[in-house]
Parts: sequence; structure tokens; C-alpha cells
Amino acid sequence: MENFVSMKSLSKSELLHLIKRSDEVANGTSQQQNQTKPLFVANLFFEPSTRTKMSFEVAEKNLGMHVLDFHAETSSTLKGESVYDTAKTFESIGADALVIRHPEKGQVSHIAESINIPVINAGDGAGEHPTQSLLDLYTMYQEFGSFNDLDVLIVGDIAHSRVAKSNAYALQTLGANVYLSSKADWQDETLDFPYIDLDEGIKQCDVAMFLRIQLERHEKKESIESTDYLKRYGLTVERERKMRKHAIIMHPAPVNRDVEIASELVECKRSRIFKQMENGVYTRMAVLEACLKKEEPSYGTHYHTVFTPARASIS
Amino acid sequence: MENFVSMKSLSKSELLHLIKRSDEVANGTSQQQNQTKPLFVANLFFEPSTRTKMSFEVAEKNLGMHVLDFHAETSSTLKGESVYDTAKTFESIGADALVIRHPEKGQVSHIAESINIPVINAGDGAGEHPTQSLLDLYTMYQEFGSFNDLDVLIVGDIAHSRVAKSNAYALQTLGANVYLSSKADWQDETLDFPYIDLDEGIKQCDVAMFLRIQLERHEKKESIESTDYLKRYGLTVERERKMRKHAIIMHPAPVNRDVEIASELVECKRSRIFKQMENGVYTRMAVLEACLKKEEPSYGTHYHTVFTPARASIS
Amino acid sequence: MENFVSMKSLSKSELLHLIKRSDEVANGTSQQQNQTKPLFVANLFFEPSTRTKMSFEVAEKNLGMHVLDFHAETSSTLKGESVYDTAKTFESIGADALVIRHPEKGQVSHIAESINIPVINAGDGAGEHPTQSLLDLYTMYQEFGSFNDLDVLIVGDIAHSRVAKSNAYALQTLGANVYLSSKADWQDETLDFPYIDLDEGIKQCDVAMFLRIQLERHEKKESIESTDYLKRYGLTVERERKMRKHAIIMHPAPVNRDVEIASELVECKRSRIFKQMENGVYTRMAVLEACLKKEEPSYGTHYHTVFTPARASIS
Repeated sequence: MENFVSMKSLSKSELLHLIKRSDEVANGTSQQQNQTKPLFVANLFFEPSTRTKMSFEVAEKNLGMHVLDFHAETSSTLKGESVYDTAKTFESIGADALVIRHPEKGQVSHIAESINIPVINAGDGAGEHPTQSLLDLYTMYQEFGSFNDLDVLIVGDIAHSRVAKSNAYALQTLGANVYLSSKADWQDETLDFPYIDLDEGIKQCDVAMFLRIQLERHEKKESIESTDYLKRYGLTVERERKMRKHAIIMHPAPVNRDVEIASELVECKRSRIFKQMENGVYTRMAVLEACLKKEEPSYGTHYHTVFTPARASIS
Repeated sequence: MENFVSMKSLSKSELLHLIKRSDEVANGTSQQQNQTKPLFVANLFFEPSTRTKMSFEVAEKNLGMHVLDFHAETSSTLKGESVYDTAKTFESIGADALVIRHPEKGQVSHIAESINIPVINAGDGAGEHPTQSLLDLYTMYQEFGSFNDLDVLIVGDIAHSRVAKSNAYALQTLGANVYLSSKADWQDETLDFPYIDLDEGIKQCDVAMFLRIQLERHEKKESIESTDYLKRYGLTVERERKMRKHAIIMHPAPVNRDVEIASELVECKRSRIFKQMENGVYTRMAVLEACLKKEEPSYGTHYHTVFTPARASIS
Repeated sequence: MENFVSMKSLSKSELLHLIKRSDEVANGTSQQQNQTKPLFVANLFFEPSTRTKMSFEVAEKNLGMHVLDFHAETSSTLKGESVYDTAKTFESIGADALVIRHPEKGQVSHIAESINIPVINAGDGAGEHPTQSLLDLYTMYQEFGSFNDLDVLIVGDIAHSRVAKSNAYALQTLGANVYLSSKADWQDETLDFPYIDLDEGIKQCDVAMFLRIQLERHEKKESIESTDYLKRYGLTVERERKMRKHAIIMHPAPVNRDVEIASELVECKRSRIFKQMENGVYTRMAVLEACLKKEEPSYGTHYHTVFTPARASIS
């Protein structure tokens, strides 16, 4: 795998391979091999981030890599340097891979096409967020073991969500049934999935994934009256009670507590929100491995990693 | 030791244990044991810091740990994420301990109570600053070998100083005599220690600890005329001459030169200001060790460390 | 070598030693010796930087050092702490060397004189930028093998460029011929080198080094009409065609594309712009080594490094 920029472009076997590899990493069953020269990964975040950036950093350090931490706000970006020139600079000084988050959709895949080292998309505007999607998929796999006919309800700010897009495509590829639910003006008509009523969907889904309201990407700045939003479009205690016994709650976080989800439900028994974060480390290790190892594995055959996880089991 | 958030709560034997352990670390006499999986420590600083943050980082790297460097100003804090959710995120992605500085008093102990990994207080508003206090104590121990009847004069902005509070409580526990001296309106009436005249105290103390004026925490913004302040409440050359032969000068730094202390005295023979900084690394190593090792040591018995200091002696 | 703050003060044999050592580092022929205790280097950047800061970080990590990353904008600099007190703090907490960039000319050498650990100048205002110069020299050495009678044309914002000054002095020391070319009001009369016409110089030089317009250091804020500037003072496609067959193009980057150099030439065959960045890592490794090893080598004799490059060859 050369780059990792979009879930839409991955086949079912590629997705399953990465999910299963994440599981091996999580269980510490990776085959170790000495890496004599530590690799360098540069994390280029042109947008605020805690979870994704720190999760990549833990993943990179677990794999024994050196992390180059780029701060757009104290960099030559201030002198007008373009993203391309910044990326090319990191390639020149010895980065073996780039992890890029950028507010502009398509910017990351543009860089990936122009650079000779692997590029991993850590979120490109309202475009895609493939490693978030992969950790969501792994969390579902961990829970249900299969995607066949899994009913996944994605709820909220669909139009501005890169997570919704990456997940909807990948879940479809894997055989799951995707349903969407959102405020009328936050629907995304380019996504070919059915929109359903939240109160209907919540009763029948296996997975209820609530999205963060991405106010920073809204062109029309509307004020969200949180109590009203929660009641109409969010996960209230009443709605949670109607979920199927085995159904789980997911959210990419940070949660706007009492807006998308009632605060008391964030760490409830059904919630996998913090589990998702933990899983993000394993899936990012799997993605970094896949992008950085020399030989392309034949998917389906036995997999040899060339990395030495610095930490066999994270837990 | 589960957390390290307050000096007030520590017993004499716990304090002495940490001070003596700092001394062992400083002298490189720690027992080494291989740490196969590097631990992760996240440094969450919600207020500016050079000394404390970098001192923790050196301590952590000396102990062979991976450091996660959180930048509030480019994090999801900008998206409204709470301190609790941020801390919980770091726990989820694999942090083994959190070091937290926060402008709000009590915030760090609140987090410590809600999180399953050790939390170390790196300063909570006008609350406490226990690792600064511990390095101050160790610096006095290094000098005098005992706290019994040691006369310690704490001078300056008592009311807004977390250092003064942490030190006064701990010194009392250890058997020292604590005297305070300050401008009338900077006294803290909740502290049950005698206020004395600076010119009297300076002649008799063993330790003269000057505090930083914490203008950032003053509700009433007054302008300090520095020459006048130095003359009335600071350490002038004249006052320094009246100190006892063996007495030392301390300050948590950064010093406002020629305000709290005459600039020419900052590195004078009596000054332990930069020695305090050096000692901060050793004491923070001792605290990190104490919080992170699995078995609680029986204080007073032989102490086995589970860490491999990456650097036997720092000096 | 105690510090590395200026190219002007280095002799021909010292310069050649560092250039040749850079080449050994680049080719992975350094002799390894185990470093049992990792050294700490603090990078203190008081001005924005991507290339220089990250290049130092790669160099330091390649040498197995621990990096302390200072962020002026979240540090005690905000509390009014001076550069000297900041530097002294890093010395106290265990830094073995400091890399400093500061907007004020002369500030870095001032610190170097007051501190007991090696200080490396990463650019001091309009003063010098010796590691940039060294990488430029190494890039020329790599190309031509010698500096004798090499014709080097330095073009652009001479008056505000620390790179121009460092390079002009060092090239003269090494036996090269230095020519300058610039807009009339950007000439620096303190530099004793001939100013020539760009269209004449470009036809005869071996090296055409274009400088970045340092608008941030201009007292008189003029607006540069980029097309006009490129046509009159920059590297257009027409000018590039008139260069000698073997001649190369250099620029310290970031390039203002289509201002100093036509965008399509930035990665053309003659351009060494990204090669310069790669070389910056090797030369900074050589400088760090030279500053940090205990015994001064006898130049010309066999050279033993005390470092273990974490990465034998970077490529």
C-alpha cells in the first residue's frame, strides 16, 4: 500500500486485512523483527487535533519510529510556504512517511500524488478521514465479528462530516447496511444511502453512530440550541432505552455533551466512545506498517511485519 | 502512591522518602531494572511554562519514557473539549500517567479522582505546586541535611502563590519553622504562619525564599513600580549582606530581576536558584517513579526502582 | 569547537574539516562508538522555522540525542523571561547543547559567551546563519569537489540576508570568487564584494544562489510586484537557459515561487534546492558532533566520532 488517503478506494479484502491486522496488533501477536535504523514520520496537522494527532504519535512510538512534530503556527507556513513545499521539505530532510490533516478537501490526495514517500490522510476538510473510519470498523468487528447485514445508523451532521463519508463507503463495501439520519438541511444528497427517522432507526440498529456537529465547517453560522437539538436529533436517555439489547453507541469525539449525546450516556455500558480511541492506536499502527513495509503483502497469505512494536501489548 | 497532587496530604515519612529518593537519583545510585515496554507520559499544560514542563520532559526521558506533548492551543480544547474529556482521551490512547498544569485551583485533583492512571499536579492556579515544593525541600535538605528547627522565610506575593502554600505545609510537617513576609494586601489569612518584618527576618533565617509576583493571578491589576518594590519588599544588596553566613537564597523562577531580587544577586554565591532547577529533574524522576511503580514501597525499607534511568548521572 | 555561531571566524581548515565530515556522515562512513547516556539538545526557536528546526531535530535524533523542543509562544517568555534566563534554565535542567534562533542580531553569540554548554546559531536576525552556510558549502563541494576559483553569484535581498553574509565570508576563506547582484537599495555596503549585473553574472557563474526576500526584516514595508521583480531581479526561464552547462541553482528556501525563481525551475535539473535541505541534516550532524565531543580533533588527522548515528545512511 503506497498511500492511505481514502476508504472509498479500498477493496473488501484490503479493508478486512487492515482490520484483522489491527486486531493482531491489539492482541500483541505481531511478529517482531529488528529495525536497525529507526524510521522518521512527520505529523503535519494544519487543523487543531488532540485525539488523532496523539493517537498517531503513540502508534508511531509504539512502532519504534522517530516523530517529527510540525506546528503550522510556528512554521514557515507563516512565511507563505505552500503545503506542497512543506511536504517536499520533510521528504528532503529524511521523513519516511507523512501524516497530513488539512482543512481543504482533496489537499491530502493531491500531496500524495506529488510526493515519493507514503502519505496518510488524517482528515481533509469535509473529504475523508480514513483512519477514523478504520478504527470505527475495527470497533464494530471487535463487537460483532462480521459486517454481513450489520445495521449501522449514522446520525447527525452528515453534510459536513468526513467520518460519515469514509464509513458509509467502507461499510457498504464490507456488506453492512448503512442508514442515515439528520436534520433536513444537513443531509448530503451525494451519498446514496437511505435517510430514516431517528426514532425508528434507533430501535433497530446494531450500531448507532452519532457525529460531531462540525460548526467550523458550516458556511451558514447557525446557533444550535443544545437542549432542543438533543431532544430532536440527539441520543437522549429515552432513545437509548429503546435500543436493541446488544446494540452499541459510537461517536468520533470530541462529543458535544448534551448536544449530540446526553452527557450521562457518554460512558454508559453501550458506549464504545473511549474504546474507539484505544482502537485508534492499533489501527494506525496497522496502517503505518502497511504503508511503510517494503514488500506489498499478498492479502490473505501469512503476514510478516518488519517493525518491532516498542510495546507488545498496550491495553 | 497513586497520585501526586498536594503536599498538604503527605506525611513526614512520605516526604522524607521522596526527598531521599531524589538524592539517590541525583547521585546515580538507583538500582536499575530493565523496562521492556517504554511507558507513555502525557504532559498537559493549560498554562505557559518553560521550567516545569521541560524539567518533567527531561525527567521522563531520563526514565526511558515516551513523552506525549499536548498543546492546548492547537488541540480539541479549541473545539470546546473539557479537561476531563482530554484527560480521558490520553488514558484511552495509552498514557500511563498524566502531568497536568491548569489555571483553575482544584482542577487537577478533580481529574485525579476521575481517572484510572496516576495524575501529577504541575501547578493548579493559586492552589498547589507540589513538585516545585519537593525540589525546594530537596534543595534545603542538600544544604542542611535536616529540617529540624530550620528557619525558612517566605517573602512576597503569598496570596497568589501556590508555591508558598505547598512549601509552608510541607516544611511544617518536616519540623521547620516557617515565617512569612509580604506587602499587607498580599498576605493570605488562611495560612496559619507568623508574618514578620522582612528586615528582621532576613537577618535570622537559614533560607530566604522569594516568590514571583503572580500578576497574571491578581484580580486588581496594580502597577508595580519595580525600584520601589525591590527597596521595600525585595532582596537588595544591603539586605543580602545582613544574612547569616550559611543562609541561602531561593526563588522558584522566573525571577523578575530587580523587582523581587536585585539582578546581580540572582547568581551570587548564596543563590540556589539554578541549583533548584537542576534538582527539579531529580525530584520529578522520584515522583514519576513513585507514581508508576506497581508495588507500594514500605517506606523506610530498602527501595527498589523498576525504572532504568537513561542517564545515570546528570549534573 | 566550543560553539558554532559564525562562519566569519572559521579558518579554511576548520571549514574543510566540517565539510568533509558532513560528507562522511552523508555516506554513512562514520565510526560508531556506543553512547551509553543519551545527550539532551534544546532547540530554542524565537522565530518561525520549518526547515532549520526540523532538520536539526532529524540530525539530533540520528545521533541518538534527546530533543527538548522549546515553544516561545507557550513558555515563560510570556512572563517576561529573558533569553539569557531561558538558556540558563535549559543548562540547569540538563541540556548538553543549545540550538538558538533569535530575531536579534548578535543575541546568539551573546548567549554563547555567558553559558557553559555549546551554543549553535540557527540564525540571528540579519546576522549570520552558519549551518545554512555550511550546507550550502557542502552542496557546492559535492558538485565541484573544490572551491578554488569557483564563481558564485549571490542574488537578491543581500542587505537583509544572514545567509548571504555567512556564505560570502566562508566562500572567500575557501578560495571561491563571490559576486553579488541586487536591487540598488538592497545592497549591503559593508560587504566587500563586487556587485555585478544579473544578466552578465548568470552567464558566467558556476553557482547562482538566489536569496529569499526577507520582508519581515524590512524597515520600509514596500510591496513587491512579483512579476516585475522576477523579470528584473529573479531567475526566469530565459536567464536559466543562458547559464553554463554545469552551473547549478541554489536557494535557502522557502522560495517565493515566481518571485525569486520561476516556479517551474524550482525542481529543474540544475536546481539543488531540495538537495540542500537533505544536506542540511548531514552538516548539522557534523556540527553537533564537533561541538559535543570531548577532545578537539587535530584537524587533518584521523577523526573518531563519539556518537552512534541512529541511522547509518539517510538517503
